[in-house]
Amino acid sequence: MAAPGKGLEGVVAAETAISDIDGKEGVLSYVGYDIHDLAPNATFEETCYLLHNLELPTEQQLDEIKEQLGREREPNDFVMDLMPQLAQNTAPMSMLRTACSASSANDPDGWDTSEEANYRKAMRLIAVFPTLVAYYDRLRNDQPLVRPDSGLSLAANFLYMLKGDKADDAEARIFDICLTLHADHTMNASTFAARVCAATLSDIHSAVTAGIAALKGPLHGGANEQVMRMIKEIRNLGGAGKARDYTIDKLRNKVKVMGFGHRVYKTEDPRATHLRRMAKELAEKSGDGSNYEISQEIERAVMDEKGIYPNVDFYAASVYGYLRIPTDLFTPVFACSRVSGWTAHVREQYADNRLIRPDHAYVGPERRSWKALSQR
Amino acid sequence: MAAPGKGLEGVVAAETAISDIDGKEGVLSYVGYDIHDLAPNATFEETCYLLHNLELPTEQQLDEIKEQLGREREPNDFVMDLMPQLAQNTAPMSMLRTACSASSANDPDGWDTSEEANYRKAMRLIAVFPTLVAYYDRLRNDQPLVRPDSGLSLAANFLYMLKGDKADDAEARIFDICLTLHADHTMNASTFAARVCAATLSDIHSAVTAGIAALKGPLHGGANEQVMRMIKEIRNLGGAGKARDYTIDKLRNKVKVMGFGHRVYKTEDPRATHLRRMAKELAEKSGDGSNYEISQEIERAVMDEKGIYPNVDFYAASVYGYLRIPTDLFTPVFACSRVSGWTAHVREQYADNRLIRPDHAYVGPERRSWKALSQR
Repeated sequence: MAAPGKGLEGVVAAETAISDIDGKEGVLSYVGYDIHDLAPNATFEETCYLLHNLELPTEQQLDEIKEQLGREREPNDFVMDLMPQLAQNTAPMSMLRTACSASSANDPDGWDTSEEANYRKAMRLIAVFPTLVAYYDRLRNDQPLVRPDSGLSLAANFLYMLKGDKADDAEARIFDICLTLHADHTMNASTFAARVCAATLSDIHSAVTAGIAALKGPLHGGANEQVMRMIKEIRNLGGAGKARDYTIDKLRNKVKVMGFGHRVYKTEDPRATHLRRMAKELAEKSGDGSNYEISQEIERAVMDEKGIYPNVDFYAASVYGYLRIPTDLFTPVFACSRVSGWTAHVREQYADNRLIRPDHAYVGPERRSWKALSQR
Repeated sequence: MAAPGKGLEGVVAAETAISDIDGKEGVLSYVGYDIHDLAPNATFEETCYLLHNLELPTEQQLDEIKEQLGREREPNDFVMDLMPQLAQNTAPMSMLRTACSASSANDPDGWDTSEEANYRKAMRLIAVFPTLVAYYDRLRNDQPLVRPDSGLSLAANFLYMLKGDKADDAEARIFDICLTLHADHTMNASTFAARVCAATLSDIHSAVTAGIAALKGPLHGGANEQVMRMIKEIRNLGGAGKARDYTIDKLRNKVKVMGFGHRVYKTEDPRATHLRRMAKELAEKSGDGSNYEISQEIERAVMDEKGIYPNVDFYAASVYGYLRIPTDLFTPVFACSRVSGWTAHVREQYADNRLIRPDHAYVGPERRSWKALSQR
């Protein structure tokens, strides 16, 4: 019996054809395509097709998936009934977890678990997540809902539904790239949670709900929000000039600075390279460099002090900030992208399944005899 | 890098003091107490205390947890608002998954993640699950709700809320034992899913929601329902006299007979021993031996043909059948018990946490260059 220690670090939990990481070289690839090729070239719709079909789409296939992801953006009636209550009562990731769970009930494919039905269910989940997040935000702010525009890309449509007016092409494209960058990342905790569920042959909505549940954690998807809170805190202290002292002070007091380091990458997370560049672009475009400059100072301080690189969450925070996405929606936005990877992994798990049931190391009391209540 | 193969069989994923299994000897223990000692002696309330506190309760501690688990049985208003819709639209485990997820919103401890708050949240979840299941059943059948009776044990109260009249002491005690038998089982798939979520420091409601999502699968909690469906099918074919041929026919046609075999036990699952005895007791009491007799014939046929032992799901089906629990509530009833183990494991994970993030084996296409759409 192997004893890899807590965390299953380095233990192969599943085979996958969906994505791969070379942590030493800092390479991430989806189905053989380097993320550095995908970021400038692929749309999120193409990425979704790639993750699910293991090939880039032809023109016709791309039209089909765009049509599909455009058509299925409205939540079903049951979920729509819940949304006002969820918007009033619930934190964003809890809303998404509950709405995703609830959306299984009225799925047009019902309990059909064929490969084809699961593909359609996957597309519906990818299509509807941005709407859930945007509706939630508008409902909680007493704003009228902006219905999805099926003529827009998934990225542009999200910004439109959230803000009520159409983003310019440059911003829409940057957000589109963000979605591609976050779409998949091998056996990360949320994808793994989804696969553990799928491996009991539970349904795809269950597995994705488990993915959301795991992504919510501050050691996973929740980190991007905490980065933004740190940036805001530094801005309140006086801005970029205060960032270095703030950061070093944290580190020396053993307080974790979020958005740095990764279990898998020993060099720069290749996604961070693109997010840093886009944060800079948006900083210049907006005329307000503060998020970017503060981020740069934090990055330098962490590198000098600890030699640790920023991860995907670090510059994502600035980018989302410049796109005027509310901070508490950063992790739900992450989910809007990662749902493409979760569903692809769940379908891959179903296709060649074995129950995921690890062992444990017992560290409790030795065997002992029952003691009656009166003798305790 | 270890390559244990799919399923993480034999790979230690976590340390735990909560339960232990000796698969070769067929021993299950909770915190050092053999399940053969717990079944005849412990109440489910004592078991909950044991799993969470790693000691049997004193009289005062037992009174406290009984009071706590009696007081918190009503779902909060938000969840109550959802229940009629969930009862009309949703399958039982999907209802429980959605209701559990939704119940985080109005928890009196809010986002407090202190150890004490998580203990209270755990107790609330254990207390409310039976009510959710009973209310669901009565709502879908247009029956008036039966409000929980805090004077009854959790087991007796569930049967009361479900049926509308109080179970006799013998039946209530049998159901109580069932809850203890199902309460924990080391790193089973649902508990593991819950721990993977908890290890991102996501909240306890998220982790338990993931547990439900995994338990729902037919290779995990869903098996007990399928056993009952098989028993009913055999009854329709003519009863116990048809069971042997039916079973052997299935096995020879490579159709899985549910409720047999277990990844961990190489001998009889010790829980099956108690469930078999209780099924017999209820058969005699009811004057209708058919469930039990059919089960016995299936068990003998599987043993003769394959040498495989029944697991916890096999006789649980007969027992729940005799207790007149609707078949599609068997897995939710399993969840009503296992939530005690899930929450204990989640708290154990929080107390000494490390992100659970395994590795993968990449089996997809080799690195390849981007191809423009027009060239595909």
